Amino acid sequence: MIFTFPEPRHLGISLATLRQRHPLVHCITNQVASNLTANALLCVGASPLMAEDEDEVAALSPDALLINLGMQTPARMRSARVAVTGARQRGTPWVLDPVAAGALSSRTELALELAAFRPAVIKGNASEIITLAGGQGGRGTDATSPTSDAQASAEALARHTGAIIAITGPEDIVTDGHRTTIVTHGHPMLAKITGLGCMVGALIAACLTVETDALLAATNALTLLGLAAERAALRATGPGSLQVELLDELYKTGSGAWFS
Amino acid sequence: MIFTFPEPRHLGISLATLRQRHPLVHCITNQVASNLTANALLCVGASPLMAEDEDEVAALSPDALLINLGMQTPARMRSARVAVTGARQRGTPWVLDPVAAGALSSRTELALELAAFRPAVIKGNASEIITLAGGQGGRGTDATSPTSDAQASAEALARHTGAIIAITGPEDIVTDGHRTTIVTHGHPMLAKITGLGCMVGALIAACLTVETDALLAATNALTLLGLAAERAALRATGPGSLQVELLDELYKTGSGAWFS
Amino acid sequence: MIFTFPEPRHLGISLATLRQRHPLVHCITNQVASNLTANALLCVGASPLMAEDEDEVAALSPDALLINLGMQTPARMRSARVAVTGARQRGTPWVLDPVAAGALSSRTELALELAAFRPAVIKGNASEIITLAGGQGGRGTDATSPTSDAQASAEALARHTGAIIAITGPEDIVTDGHRTTIVTHGHPMLAKITGLGCMVGALIAACLTVETDALLAATNALTLLGLAAERAALRATGPGSLQVELLDELYKTGSGAWFS
Repeated sequence: MIFTFPEPRHLGISLATLRQRHPLVHCITNQVASNLTANALLCVGASPLMAEDEDEVAALSPDALLINLGMQTPARMRSARVAVTGARQRGTPWVLDPVAAGALSSRTELALELAAFRPAVIKGNASEIITLAGGQGGRGTDATSPTSDAQASAEALARHTGAIIAITGPEDIVTDGHRTTIVTHGHPMLAKITGLGCMVGALIAACLTVETDALLAATNALTLLGLAAERAALRATGPGSLQVELLDELYKTGSGAWFS
Repeated sequence: MIFTFPEPRHLGISLATLRQRHPLVHCITNQVASNLTANALLCVGASPLMAEDEDEVAALSPDALLINLGMQTPARMRSARVAVTGARQRGTPWVLDPVAAGALSSRTELALELAAFRPAVIKGNASEIITLAGGQGGRGTDATSPTSDAQASAEALARHTGAIIAITGPEDIVTDGHRTTIVTHGHPMLAKITGLGCMVGALIAACLTVETDALLAATNALTLLGLAAERAALRATGPGSLQVELLDELYKTGSGAWFS
Repeated sequence: MIFTFPEPRHLGISLATLRQRHPLVHCITNQVASNLTANALLCVGASPLMAEDEDEVAALSPDALLINLGMQTPARMRSARVAVTGARQRGTPWVLDPVAAGALSSRTELALELAAFRPAVIKGNASEIITLAGGQGGRGTDATSPTSDAQASAEALARHTGAIIAITGPEDIVTDGHRTTIVTHGHPMLAKITGLGCMVGALIAACLTVETDALLAATNALTLLGLAAERAALRATGPGSLQVELLDELYKTGSGAWFS
């Protein structure tokens, strides 16, 4: 069954709550994406924590967590295990972004290992999700299998892992294995901004702190990004200015006028 | 006793000297802030050196040094010790930014250890400075204790360490324990740019190469940033464009018209 | 013998091919430059791969490779050796950017070691190239020896290594030891964008995937950057906006109108 939600008004309320609570979102992510990710979190009112040292990670108690597998290193892998173990013990919602699962077998293995620690959401492109569901993956981080082909895989993976699965692409698909939402907002030029997909994982993590229904939280985050991108693209003349305008739009969601 | 200085004219002369000397400013900082930090240094006419490998650090003789504790790792900690040891031996002025002291006890310990190596300036937010002075710290990198509450702590820490203490916030406070300056320039949206505070530490380090009075150097750097932010904010529509405009304004300080 | 090529029309055809082939360009580069580098590759239609873990690197088979020595670490050095060994075995074209050779003796040694693995292109500033040819290097990453002084060194280094040598500066010089091209496009403000030189190495790597003549590929990449910078500078008001506009211009080369 395919739902189309949330209504903009609902998204606006959710974002207003986010700005009030100022949640700590801990991100273990790759160095290409870390600056954009932290900036996006600040723009929507969250507080980014980017520590990735194993001992420091063990000392943190964030409100939500993102584990992004891009540019993996043994040290970061150890920290990721510490972080997800802690998240599971504390009941902290967390997001897994299995970057390049399928393209690199070591990433596939790591993603499957971490998926057992009960992420609230697994977010990937079609190739990555198909791979984790047991199918054939793609060649890299910007693999472009049609999103819709992956829907069956996503539903199976959701039922198997208990996580919400979010597939990003020209159309985003979010599913818990039973309910499925489609987000049709966005802009093709987003694919030309490095780390953009990684940043989305952090927005989902932030939205998880204000929505108990993780399907709705992931849909909210993808809708937010899509709407902001559509507005930003009106003024952008290329990927450089699109990134600048996108951060500005995420910030403007804090004003009442944005959702009117 | 509270001073209000520098006069814009004095700041302009100091920045002109900086552009003539083109000082090498070595930064050991976190990966979220490193790009913005290097760009800001280039914009004001300094030459950034971002090496962080222990052996490479041992081979450097910069004109000034920044040690920023964000996203700490054991390797970077070793390099920081090598760098500050060298700076002390050579008499190179250096800045300590004790990111998340108070929020993470390991950062507090490291900051206190490094503070014994005679930094010229310790720059932090109110929570970090209160922590180093022996008080109660805050929860993270964007902690928002009122700046003024920390003034007594800053003065005590300055007298204890011999360093100038700079507290950044809505109003910046700079003190040597006896003389205190207040910088009221700036813009609230600066708090929404990740790594901005880290970048300020590098600007202070750059200013230390052209001012023998470290109190004046730190005040200069904070005034420069505040004035540039005020101008940049006139054209910015959010944190994305504010960062772009801010770099442009720092660059424009090299033109004679900026201080008129 | 000094050539002045390519004609804009030829460059346009080469870039159109690049966008069709969507080549995977693997970059092992420093954390200050990695975001800008990946964004530039996306803008010209290439697909960036930024993995730097030794095991992950061993599993990759990119279409071209960039090894940038900035912010070196022992781990990245090992990965660089793995990557160039693989590139040589597979016949994958690769670019060496010997950042700070001359300024740091360890970088000089590493650069000379890697140069034996037959890079297609070695790209550096005048100081770095003079150092590798056996002369006196400079003090840092933004060393400013007059480019023309380095031409003789570049020609000697090209004949010795078999690589194309590209010297970037106010005028770029590209040589195979016999044929030499000069690129006079560009803008002085490019020197105020951190990681810009590192980014150029990745553009050269991308161009190597569509030109069998590496002299032409390197000249193409430098011409592309220079033309884009000239256009971007028309709208930029400082280094911050120049970087944004530069990415937009690189993206616009995909439209037919850019070369008309």
